[in-house]
Amino acid sequence: MRNLRLDICYEGTRYRGWQRLSGTDNTIQAKLEQTLSRILGEPIEISASGRTDAGTHAKGQVVSFHCQSTMPCEEILFKLRSYLPEDIGIYSCKNVSPRFHARLNAKTKTYTYRLWNSEEPCVFERKFVHIDPRPVDMDAMLRASRDFLGQHDFSAFCANKHMKKSTVRYIESFSIERLENEIRFTVTGNGFLHHMVRIMVGTLLEIGRGERTADCIPALFGASRADSGELIPACGLCLMEVTY
Amino acid sequence: MRNLRLDICYEGTRYRGWQRLSGTDNTIQAKLEQTLSRILGEPIEISASGRTDAGTHAKGQVVSFHCQSTMPCEEILFKLRSYLPEDIGIYSCKNVSPRFHARLNAKTKTYTYRLWNSEEPCVFERKFVHIDPRPVDMDAMLRASRDFLGQHDFSAFCANKHMKKSTVRYIESFSIERLENEIRFTVTGNGFLHHMVRIMVGTLLEIGRGERTADCIPALFGASRADSGELIPACGLCLMEVTY
Repeated sequence: MRNLRLDICYEGTRYRGWQRLSGTDNTIQAKLEQTLSRILGEPIEISASGRTDAGTHAKGQVVSFHCQSTMPCEEILFKLRSYLPEDIGIYSCKNVSPRFHARLNAKTKTYTYRLWNSEEPCVFERKFVHIDPRPVDMDAMLRASRDFLGQHDFSAFCANKHMKKSTVRYIESFSIERLENEIRFTVTGNGFLHHMVRIMVGTLLEIGRGERTADCIPALFGASRADSGELIPACGLCLMEVTY
Repeated sequence: MRNLRLDICYEGTRYRGWQRLSGTDNTIQAKLEQTLSRILGEPIEISASGRTDAGTHAKGQVVSFHCQSTMPCEEILFKLRSYLPEDIGIYSCKNVSPRFHARLNAKTKTYTYRLWNSEEPCVFERKFVHIDPRPVDMDAMLRASRDFLGQHDFSAFCANKHMKKSTVRYIESFSIERLENEIRFTVTGNGFLHHMVRIMVGTLLEIGRGERTADCIPALFGASRADSGELIPACGLCLMEVTY
């Protein structure tokens, strides 16, 4: 059966997240599945590299699906671009090996979290950042962030308290940059638990504000959700890249 | 009487332009005047460096107004930031000489016009660019744009056909850059007629598409509106800076 890969982006502001939900079609998965089913004339079910939360954005989401249709990729791409709402964009549509699966084959994912850390107005970027002007200690956050690197049990950074599967993940890189009015957190890992990036950055911000010490991270591995920091808002988060 | 200067920005998407209009309070001037009047407890009338059209943005608008209030500038700034909608931002609030007037004293203004010139998706910048993927000849547009420099009669680039005042303006610089998916036009002049930047860029784009020759600009000085190019959409336009 034919297997297709889409590379896509979206502004998550007005959606209830990636995943199809019963009772609403206001999810990105539902919009894409409805549009593809209409274009291809057959019911389409898609898999993404992973779900994104309500309000979270994506600049590098990857999707795959099977279909019977022989419609050329260029035509599918053109029709998707014509029919989808303007907050969902398609970079490419390609035929891939029947064994490719957007979620199961994902090797790493990279997310950014953007904090607007200034009293200056944030008019043009306001839907893509979390605004919190309280001063933070960059050095303390940088030191603490290094403890995330490597393989650890991120149970304390998972919103799902009754997670039955493994909560062990591998973090490959973690950077924190100060731009003019913004602090940008960028993390790459082999997978992320539910709300994991938002809780990791929330915990670092508590360190940055002096509410926790910079050496508190190692004690959180294998600990429980109550021990880690605040879940910060979804609007600052963006899925940037998935590698295979 | 006390005279105050505000440096402000706004996303123009949902407004009917800068200028107060009867029958609606959905203009940026009306929002600012209402909010200032409430904060200062006296009726406030403001002057901007110039009007912006419905849908046009500003990153460097300057405003001045007189008031009786002795409220400190920091307090006015703090209250404005608290009460104004999130698509209007205030950079600063300063006491200035009683003779300063945001419109009458303006020496130059700089506008950018952003064209998304690509089939690639434009999800995140879509409210700040005009999308037109048709290929254009950058060299032809660059050559033509040089003819705008200097002092000319821009009658053909003015939406107001019955303009009684002078249509002579001085253009100090005009640059056109190609970024990845975008072409950015930046123009600085001593003043701009109604719709002038949008008609200038619209005319350059017709040159870029080969619908006009690159040497057509000089013949348009002193000509009529019917001779120049298309008025392109307001969403790509942004007032970047005013100098005094």
